[in-house]
Amino acid sequence: MKTQNDNTLYEKVAKNIGELIQNRTLLPGHRIPSVRQMSQKKRVSMTTILEAYRLLERQGLIEARPQSGYYVKIHHEHNLPLPVNTALKPVVKDIKILETIASIYITANTSELVPLGASVSDSSLWPTDKLNRLLSAKLRRMGSKSIEYDFPPGNIQLRRQIAQLSLNWGCSLGPDEFTVTCGCVEAINLALRAVTRPGDLVAVESPTYYGNLHILESLGLRVLEIPASVGEGMDVDALEIALKSNPVKACLVIGNYQNPLGSVMPDVKKEKLVKILAGKNIPLIEDDVNGDLHFGLERPRALKSFDTKGNVLLCSSFSKTLAPGYRVGFISAGKHQEKVNKLKFLNTVGTPTLPQIAVSEFLASGSFDRYLKNLRAVIRERVGNFSQYILEYFPPGTKISRPNGGLVLWVELPKEIDSEEMRQNAYKKRISILPGTIFSATHTHRNYIRISATHAWNETARGAVATLGEIAKSYL
Amino acid sequence: MKTQNDNTLYEKVAKNIGELIQNRTLLPGHRIPSVRQMSQKKRVSMTTILEAYRLLERQGLIEARPQSGYYVKIHHEHNLPLPVNTALKPVVKDIKILETIASIYITANTSELVPLGASVSDSSLWPTDKLNRLLSAKLRRMGSKSIEYDFPPGNIQLRRQIAQLSLNWGCSLGPDEFTVTCGCVEAINLALRAVTRPGDLVAVESPTYYGNLHILESLGLRVLEIPASVGEGMDVDALEIALKSNPVKACLVIGNYQNPLGSVMPDVKKEKLVKILAGKNIPLIEDDVNGDLHFGLERPRALKSFDTKGNVLLCSSFSKTLAPGYRVGFISAGKHQEKVNKLKFLNTVGTPTLPQIAVSEFLASGSFDRYLKNLRAVIRERVGNFSQYILEYFPPGTKISRPNGGLVLWVELPKEIDSEEMRQNAYKKRISILPGTIFSATHTHRNYIRISATHAWNETARGAVATLGEIAKSYL
Repeated sequence: MKTQNDNTLYEKVAKNIGELIQNRTLLPGHRIPSVRQMSQKKRVSMTTILEAYRLLERQGLIEARPQSGYYVKIHHEHNLPLPVNTALKPVVKDIKILETIASIYITANTSELVPLGASVSDSSLWPTDKLNRLLSAKLRRMGSKSIEYDFPPGNIQLRRQIAQLSLNWGCSLGPDEFTVTCGCVEAINLALRAVTRPGDLVAVESPTYYGNLHILESLGLRVLEIPASVGEGMDVDALEIALKSNPVKACLVIGNYQNPLGSVMPDVKKEKLVKILAGKNIPLIEDDVNGDLHFGLERPRALKSFDTKGNVLLCSSFSKTLAPGYRVGFISAGKHQEKVNKLKFLNTVGTPTLPQIAVSEFLASGSFDRYLKNLRAVIRERVGNFSQYILEYFPPGTKISRPNGGLVLWVELPKEIDSEEMRQNAYKKRISILPGTIFSATHTHRNYIRISATHAWNETARGAVATLGEIAKSYL
Repeated sequence: MKTQNDNTLYEKVAKNIGELIQNRTLLPGHRIPSVRQMSQKKRVSMTTILEAYRLLERQGLIEARPQSGYYVKIHHEHNLPLPVNTALKPVVKDIKILETIASIYITANTSELVPLGASVSDSSLWPTDKLNRLLSAKLRRMGSKSIEYDFPPGNIQLRRQIAQLSLNWGCSLGPDEFTVTCGCVEAINLALRAVTRPGDLVAVESPTYYGNLHILESLGLRVLEIPASVGEGMDVDALEIALKSNPVKACLVIGNYQNPLGSVMPDVKKEKLVKILAGKNIPLIEDDVNGDLHFGLERPRALKSFDTKGNVLLCSSFSKTLAPGYRVGFISAGKHQEKVNKLKFLNTVGTPTLPQIAVSEFLASGSFDRYLKNLRAVIRERVGNFSQYILEYFPPGTKISRPNGGLVLWVELPKEIDSEEMRQNAYKKRISILPGTIFSATHTHRNYIRISATHAWNETARGAVATLGEIAKSYL
């Protein structure tokens, strides 16, 4: 049945669609019409459309996602170099977060700003009504149990649900291997307090999440900063060498969708890291709060999944996926679990009952998977849009991360640009961004900014990116 | 109209009622029939009954409570000496809570035990249904606001309500002078972390709440223990002298219904304490978690009400009155408020939204006052009953506190009795109590126990007290 004519036809169709992608009618990350729909639109056979899509796929313009359809490939346009790291070697440092810097992330959350600073997903995506309904129904059945103390390790129904989720991370942890906490932040506090004392040295990536640095400072800890890349996260070889000459007491690592880099450590590096630290009996604290926000089909493995010695303290939460205000997080602390439970009791006695019940009911309802799938698709699209527009509006020489998950973009600007100055100017225009300097105790990463790419993609967002581009260009 | 006969009559009636009190038909703390009811029962005039009640009042057998009626006076039977304090002088001490001791308060909360260990009121008294109803209704109106981050200082509606309550404590604090926390325990953690560093010396009462001691230990702090009495709490004069030779960096005091003593510091002592510490620029951390549980008409003043320098950090919560599982507490930290807000952000990011909303709605509904009034009446009665039966069943020489508020009794046993041994034996009989040794870093108060007197007064409670009495007697 296939003729020369057919061949020409599918190539024509492919060329036509390719043009729609080039002129941005079809945006990166967007789903393109299904084979059936396109066949109707173009009035050609479905076979022809299928051939055209396969050609576009081979050309790297679109990609198939199983059970979902075809999508315009993200970043196909830029084969530009990725951001590189200005932190070239390990540095030991007392942490001293400047007051001015500490105030940044508080203003970053002010509601009058276009919030490209806060790493939090758009609240309109959350299942508020369903959570409320499930909670109210459960409370009616529970009686006074819902207002009694819930001591560590916390709500057993919730811990069972979390234990089931752990299969997705490559683990198979039991309910008793978890303690529920007030968010990932309390989990990290407890983990650090369980395995260090004030004055101890803790290895972290550079750059890394400013909140974690601030926690370390508040506990009187010092950091050994290990270079990390947008490609592979922490440089494990550099860490291994640094451990020989530094009395590191713990290592705090974000293996998946590192904040701010967006990197995922390759499994082989994850395994190596876990093994090196276990060999030296140095506890590994894993911050996996973004692990569920993968854009591809596979969820990356947790560092904890390589742990055979109970040496990894996995910390995470539902704050990036479901309901940040609930403050429901958890820790699986291996051989440190009992100590963590005691510290939890001393820090907040127990995690509040109500949010635990709401999350537990939501997970038990079986909706989490479907919900997450949709959330990830939306975020993936927004990250794609933000990337494209940053490339378009920002000055030449700008480099941008290409994360396969998470909520943020790490942007390297031309060296002339001071990101803190840029932040101040953006703030005057009612846009929040975070300067690179706060992602390290040494205040390096001066010409980098982190942009949260979760804002609904609309004229406000597009205008904010354009304004940021103008500000950046004004320094050149 | 009054005749000799009438005089004899009211005396007769009074004698008759006095006998009912002596033979425990009418129990201490119980309301006796109203003048009208008694007049009908006894078939005598209301005037006669009123005269009889006045006589009984002068005899110290009953007491009038405005707008409530007449009650059998608590403790009228025992003019026995109060417990005295074995801690006679200030002691500086590194805190080392023994593991065996740390596990006690965890087992104290096990549900198979008669819970005379845990200082928590009976959950059947809490307004569960009303809280659930108010929460569900509010959530329906709130939209995604209920699951967004609520950064420090926390829910403004709730802080407004708390600010209004502060009038009851003799304060007039504004909403911006409060930060909402995960219970009083997080508040105390934040207060200590705001004003001390590891290794610092903190003055506390001896005995004092074991949980606070354990928090101090977990933060690497040392204690200066100042003797405290069941009559007046911390010995302020002893503190003043001790401050001259000890580099105290903070003072942590329970001014109202001290745990375990039940003491209330007289206002003049409160004022003196606040003034001394302000003069020396030593922050005063006030634990006022039991302040609302007064048995009399007047709520005792908070130490904070004497603060003119912003030197007092008031910590409290709704865990003893409303819903311990909600973990809704607060801190008013005076000049340390900004630092506390930052530490709060680093410890748990924010207090969970849902319980804040529930408590805020309950307070706004105007039900709190009436609810508390009833709760206090019930607790007062139970404390009275427990006191009476302890006196009845425990060996001669037992001394017992006479708190005018709070949830616990402090019991001094004959010197031969080791309270930790007694606890173990009680545990075997499925009764939890707390041994005096855990209320001090020096593990003194060996022959004291703390009994929580909030269990419903029934055969189980009565039997438990009788069993404890037998155990105590077995050592003599």
